[in-house]
Amino acid sequence: RMTAFESHDYDPIDCDIEEEQLRSRKRAEYQNEEWWKWTLSAIIGVVMGFVAFVVDGLVDKLNSFRFGMAMRLVVGDGENQDASKFYAYISSLFVTCCLAAVAGGLVSYVEPLAAGSGIPELKTYLNGVHLKGLLRLKTLLAKLGGVAFSIGAGLIAGKEGPFVHGGGLVGGGLCSFGSHSLGFKTRRPNHFRNDRDKRDFVAIGTATGVAVAFGAPIGGMLFTVEEGTSFYNSSMLWRGFLATCVGVLTSHWLEQLDFDATDFARAKFGTHRDFGLYTDDEANYSKQYWWYFWEVPIFAMIGCLGGYIGALFVNLNVRVTAWRAKYIPVNDKFRRFLEVIAVAALTFTVMFVFMAASPCLEIPAPLRDGHTNLANELDRFEYGEASKEEIRTDFFSKMYCPEGYYSSYGQLFFVPLSQSFKFLLHLGEVGENGQAHEFLFRFDLLVFYFLAMFSLMTVTYGVGAPTGLFVPSLAVGSAMGQICGRIVNSVSGWILTDVQIDLHAYAVIGAAASLGGATRMTISITVLVMETTGSMQLIIPLMLTIFCAKAVGDRFSHGIYDTHIKIRGAPFLEEPELAGPAGDKLRVNEVMAKTMITIKPRMRVRDLIGILASNDHGAFPVTENPPTKPGEPFELHGTITRNRLLKMITHRIGFFDGNPESRPADVYGYTTAKDRDDLLDKLKQIPFKSPHVAEVAASLSSVEMDSAWIDVSRLMQRHPFITHADARVSRAYRIFRTMGLRHLYVTPDKPLVVGVMTRKDVIQEN
Amino acid sequence: RMTAFESHDYDPIDCDIEEEQLRSRKRAEYQNEEWWKWTLSAIIGVVMGFVAFVVDGLVDKLNSFRFGMAMRLVVGDGENQDASKFYAYISSLFVTCCLAAVAGGLVSYVEPLAAGSGIPELKTYLNGVHLKGLLRLKTLLAKLGGVAFSIGAGLIAGKEGPFVHGGGLVGGGLCSFGSHSLGFKTRRPNHFRNDRDKRDFVAIGTATGVAVAFGAPIGGMLFTVEEGTSFYNSSMLWRGFLATCVGVLTSHWLEQLDFDATDFARAKFGTHRDFGLYTDDEANYSKQYWWYFWEVPIFAMIGCLGGYIGALFVNLNVRVTAWRAKYIPVNDKFRRFLEVIAVAALTFTVMFVFMAASPCLEIPAPLRDGHTNLANELDRFEYGEASKEEIRTDFFSKMYCPEGYYSSYGQLFFVPLSQSFKFLLHLGEVGENGQAHEFLFRFDLLVFYFLAMFSLMTVTYGVGAPTGLFVPSLAVGSAMGQICGRIVNSVSGWILTDVQIDLHAYAVIGAAASLGGATRMTISITVLVMETTGSMQLIIPLMLTIFCAKAVGDRFSHGIYDTHIKIRGAPFLEEPELAGPAGDKLRVNEVMAKTMITIKPRMRVRDLIGILASNDHGAFPVTENPPTKPGEPFELHGTITRNRLLKMITHRIGFFDGNPESRPADVYGYTTAKDRDDLLDKLKQIPFKSPHVAEVAASLSSVEMDSAWIDVSRLMQRHPFITHADARVSRAYRIFRTMGLRHLYVTPDKPLVVGVMTRKDVIQEN
Ligand SMILES: Nc1ncnc2c1ncn2[C@@H]1O[C@H](COP(=O)(O)OP(=O)(O)OP(=O)(O)O)[C@@H](O)[C@H]1O
Ligand SMILES: Nc1ncnc2c1ncn2[C@@H]1O[C@H](COP(=O)(O)OP(=O)(O)OP(=O)(O)O)[C@@H](O)[C@H]1O
Ligand SMILES: [Mg+2]
Ligand SMILES: [Mg+2]
Repeated sequence: RMTAFESHDYDPIDCDIEEEQLRSRKRAEYQNEEWWKWTLSAIIGVVMGFVAFVVDGLVDKLNSFRFGMAMRLVVGDGENQDASKFYAYISSLFVTCCLAAVAGGLVSYVEPLAAGSGIPELKTYLNGVHLKGLLRLKTLLAKLGGVAFSIGAGLIAGKEGPFVHGGGLVGGGLCSFGSHSLGFKTRRPNHFRNDRDKRDFVAIGTATGVAVAFGAPIGGMLFTVEEGTSFYNSSMLWRGFLATCVGVLTSHWLEQLDFDATDFARAKFGTHRDFGLYTDDEANYSKQYWWYFWEVPIFAMIGCLGGYIGALFVNLNVRVTAWRAKYIPVNDKFRRFLEVIAVAALTFTVMFVFMAASPCLEIPAPLRDGHTNLANELDRFEYGEASKEEIRTDFFSKMYCPEGYYSSYGQLFFVPLSQSFKFLLHLGEVGENGQAHEFLFRFDLLVFYFLAMFSLMTVTYGVGAPTGLFVPSLAVGSAMGQICGRIVNSVSGWILTDVQIDLHAYAVIGAAASLGGATRMTISITVLVMETTGSMQLIIPLMLTIFCAKAVGDRFSHGIYDTHIKIRGAPFLEEPELAGPAGDKLRVNEVMAKTMITIKPRMRVRDLIGILASNDHGAFPVTENPPTKPGEPFELHGTITRNRLLKMITHRIGFFDGNPESRPADVYGYTTAKDRDDLLDKLKQIPFKSPHVAEVAASLSSVEMDSAWIDVSRLMQRHPFITHADARVSRAYRIFRTMGLRHLYVTPDKPLVVGVMTRKDVIQEN
Repeated sequence: RMTAFESHDYDPIDCDIEEEQLRSRKRAEYQNEEWWKWTLSAIIGVVMGFVAFVVDGLVDKLNSFRFGMAMRLVVGDGENQDASKFYAYISSLFVTCCLAAVAGGLVSYVEPLAAGSGIPELKTYLNGVHLKGLLRLKTLLAKLGGVAFSIGAGLIAGKEGPFVHGGGLVGGGLCSFGSHSLGFKTRRPNHFRNDRDKRDFVAIGTATGVAVAFGAPIGGMLFTVEEGTSFYNSSMLWRGFLATCVGVLTSHWLEQLDFDATDFARAKFGTHRDFGLYTDDEANYSKQYWWYFWEVPIFAMIGCLGGYIGALFVNLNVRVTAWRAKYIPVNDKFRRFLEVIAVAALTFTVMFVFMAASPCLEIPAPLRDGHTNLANELDRFEYGEASKEEIRTDFFSKMYCPEGYYSSYGQLFFVPLSQSFKFLLHLGEVGENGQAHEFLFRFDLLVFYFLAMFSLMTVTYGVGAPTGLFVPSLAVGSAMGQICGRIVNSVSGWILTDVQIDLHAYAVIGAAASLGGATRMTISITVLVMETTGSMQLIIPLMLTIFCAKAVGDRFSHGIYDTHIKIRGAPFLEEPELAGPAGDKLRVNEVMAKTMITIKPRMRVRDLIGILASNDHGAFPVTENPPTKPGEPFELHGTITRNRLLKMITHRIGFFDGNPESRPADVYGYTTAKDRDDLLDKLKQIPFKSPHVAEVAASLSSVEMDSAWIDVSRLMQRHPFITHADARVSRAYRIFRTMGLRHLYVTPDKPLVVGVMTRKDVIQEN
């Protein structure tokens, strides 16, 4: 299974020509490269800001279209309820299925890699494993278009996973683009030529994706540091910081232009919770969360609960995935397409049934018509400038209830997912002076919501449509938190009668616990939840909760993303510390390949093609005297990758007539620095696609086939990493992981050496 | 100069005995080690929480003692002002000098390494360079005791740098401690035996130090990720997360016990800004910061200004340091001691003069006696439940002013530094409904404060007392921010008459800009400032500002910490990306040592001691056939460090009679696993101190000297890192930096190899 993946080599190639170029490089060129890196990062930010704005707008439009229609059908007709119910159900279902069909179609018929959240794929990519087609423009469009329709169709899905993927695409795309398309083709961004540079841009892109999806610039950056990049470096951190900041600023700015263009100069930021996913004009910043010291163990317990539930989710989802692999395989496009529609229909049916069967509650007193002292009673519960009428339609919709009542279940079930999450976090928030009991959700509603959403989320994740996991997981968790809070409230009511606990703090804590239990991230989701909900006061409880969720969850399963990476069989390299004991027990020479296929520095093109066609190794050692039997030591002049060899043949680089007298300079035949750079440009690693050997061979004329020779000496990697045959595998593992290698060569137990250097030697020269 | 430093080797030693142990290790032992790591991290948190509580308490006591006395002398006597002024000045000066003498004495006469902020030293340590005595208990006491007295004596200093150092000490100490003292000496934490483990614990300790100093758990963790650890790994991130969380929770808890023990169950957290350095009961969370979109470029400009000022600070401080190195050298204890007292006296004099020469302003109307409609006019400016009288004494002290007036300059100059920073951030905060003009600071006060504090900070940093830089830099910056805000306000007043800008937002932005300009950190100080001031609404402007500060500052100088690392001449390895072009132009064989001093696997002890005494290399290659001339290749059997050789001789490990027949098993003479572990325990890398060769030689009997042989074969590092002689130095640099090496061996250009492996080969075995 692992053969579907190709590794990247993050060790920059040190071939003679490359070195010649580097030695002749001027300081200005280094600065220029640096400058381009920063500029591209800022551009990634701007682009992602735009993308987020567009996708958000589309989601809004689709949501208001679908729910607007359904609402009109539901509320519009008071008489003949049963018939109208059926009609409303069928028509809305139809719309739902149409939207789901678009989302599913984009995945099944346009780009299968657009399915799911994309985080496992991106994580694998950043770990150094290539998945074909992951970073194509088509994938970007299918993913981001698809996620708008997934959410619009009411699937239990969020947009953040797809945004991570989208960000990675934009980052990688801009990097390759900067490197080879458009007017840029002057001299400059010749720089970004290898996998390593691209990796950094992809990482920056993912950070920006999270940042704009959540409006959480720091959380976005941390997401990438914690979950994304296996290869962390601080210059990337800084550029990512710029990108996330620019991205969020751009999307803020576009939103303001959209809604507030007339009063641009006077629009204050910061007075409302206008950062984050949930723009809460209806609740002010003030004192909405509080906690007591004795709640700390309770929060920890909620964390553990979140860990259990997360592990349960992962394990159930593994079963669902196994079932799916059997009955709805990825290559059966039509079944996969139908499944999306079926799941959307199921989701909508559940929602509708709950809504239709809902008990009716009286509208809270302060919101009723004719109730005058609104200002006094609600105190801080202001709802901006909305009138009571508007509040009632937006938050206490009547649906199938009589006049003056609202549909209790419908309040959470018959709204977009992100809206119901927001309600769970904020509805009924009245500051510290006591809860408004009339605003509380019914306990049974919370339980039903929790169960329904948990089941639907488990089924939905892995369906053939772009679906993120963050928002569903947060919503499920906040319901869980509210349930726990209610229980604590009644228990604490007996003991400490005058203590008022904060249900909304429990909702936030629960949300964090659930997300932590499912994903097993720590510091980044603490920040994400904090930035998203504005609950900076809760930072300590949040950290503790998430920590417990991770600790407990890790006992039962891997995180959902790692699990899916495992299921796909990707050769993912964990942090060496977490790699487990097996590496300590084995030696390198027990796992290495001993029967080496080598090539010579100069050989007939025909022979080379024969070697390339006879196997599918990714790289070949170059030596004058190949070993005669397995395991025999031979002199390693260098190594060269299949990809580079194929490109050399395609472009006829290094071809000569086989005359042993001809010097390399003649063979490569460039004279100016410009020619040299052009030559390197043809061989650059990105875009990462290599022609197939058969095609290449076919492109050769018969004359070339017969008489041409090729000289690889000046283009091979001269200094591949080497280790000892008798070293433990864990050492090799550490080298692979830390340096981001693709191949590691093995010397005999006692290699020859000629010298030694220390860190002071390297520094003194700088 | 670099010889004062010794490098660490973060590459775990792979000797035969170590490998034997690892191979026989059971899964339970791995888990056990894991468990100990987590436990120790939590303990670090608890300890640092206690430490923070104690130091904070001491600072408070000293501050209130000194200012209380001064205030009594100043305010107490209305008549005969001039004489009383002089008396007040002299007596307070005396107290100040006494306190400064304690701080200076602790550094000069107890532990010179306790001077300064400690961040450069810790940063160097975490980069892999050892500084003798940095992590001793004595240093901890001198540092944390000293910083309380520095701050108590009114030096322009903060506690956070010293807390970073303190945290590192606690982390490193607990790790070694867990590894060799106390009852722990059972079998378990035999684990933490090498530099690498200790490094991780030190890193976790520094994170916890920042976290408890600021009450900012995430900022603390990020500080270490961004500034501290050159070697990031995610398992350390998670453990650090636990430690910071536990640390802040512990200190919260202790504070609550201290102040609120009677009402423990009912004390709400989160309703006031009770996280962070500045507990602001007097301002509520609500809406105190806001910004407009058109301010974004202004904030960016403030960032640039911060960058300039930071660079100016660094450059001036470099001159001061150079001057100091000449006239007050570190080893002249007495001068250094006197300097601290002189600087403290100077600081106090400046403060006192400003206070005494201050213009008097009328107490703001709402605070005057007899002014009744307090509630209406001040609106949100509530000051908790304090009475007007208390507010006046605490915030509008009369000092040398007539009754009914307050000392305008004294308000900022004659209070502890952290208090004046808090005033700059919050005093006069009245929500969004307009500024209370009576509460504004005079413009000239802001300018004077800025200039005075900037100069004093420049002089103070580097003095022979523990002094942190964060709070001074933040205070200077917030004055700068307020100045900018005032200017913007008057300009914008002409154009947009009805727009009210937020001066306090400018103060926060300015503080961040100044800190960013001085330290050049980015993401971590964004989070630190945000957590400390509770200004989550400002996150985007903060990021942008700090980014500009870094970008501009980097054009003129390094950050202050890096500058001091440079001044000390530490062999600090930057991120490879930032290492500069020199490494591209040179080859390894141009910088390596070619004349190798080697040892044989078995040799006479006398010869070995001769070799050890003849040079001070840190490690020796082991070979049977030493090279006869420089640069000649020889077979590398392994390498062994001087430290380990000395320990072997000290403990007579590997000694035998020179009989070539004797097998290694006899030589080492252990039979049980227990014996083996004891043997390894004697050789462990931490605590990091090695006996001197002369001492060791002296300890040998003459019989041993004459006839004993030593066999190092089973204790040498079998698999040191190797690279190619013709590789670029930048490659060697990358290997050094990424793997944390001390020595790198060099093979000929074309080494022999026997095989190859790929990442799939390592994974399949796991
Ligand atoms: N030139 C070679 N000669 C002999 N064996 C090789 C050679 N190159 C690689 N191998 C071995 O053959 C197997 C497959 O090699 P290949 O280069 O395809 O790498 P891989 O494991 O498939 O990873 P990837 O394709 O992602 O680089 C590996 O076990 C590797 O050790
Ligand atoms: N065994 C050796 N034989 C010959 N030269 C050596 C040997 N070991 C190190 N050197 C060289 O001698 C110089 C000093 O070596 P030493 O081992 O003291 O390291 P250092 O540079 O002082 O760093 P540190 O002491 O921090 O490890 C270096 O340039 C190094 O390359
Ligand atoms: Mg392969
Ligand atoms: Mg040395």
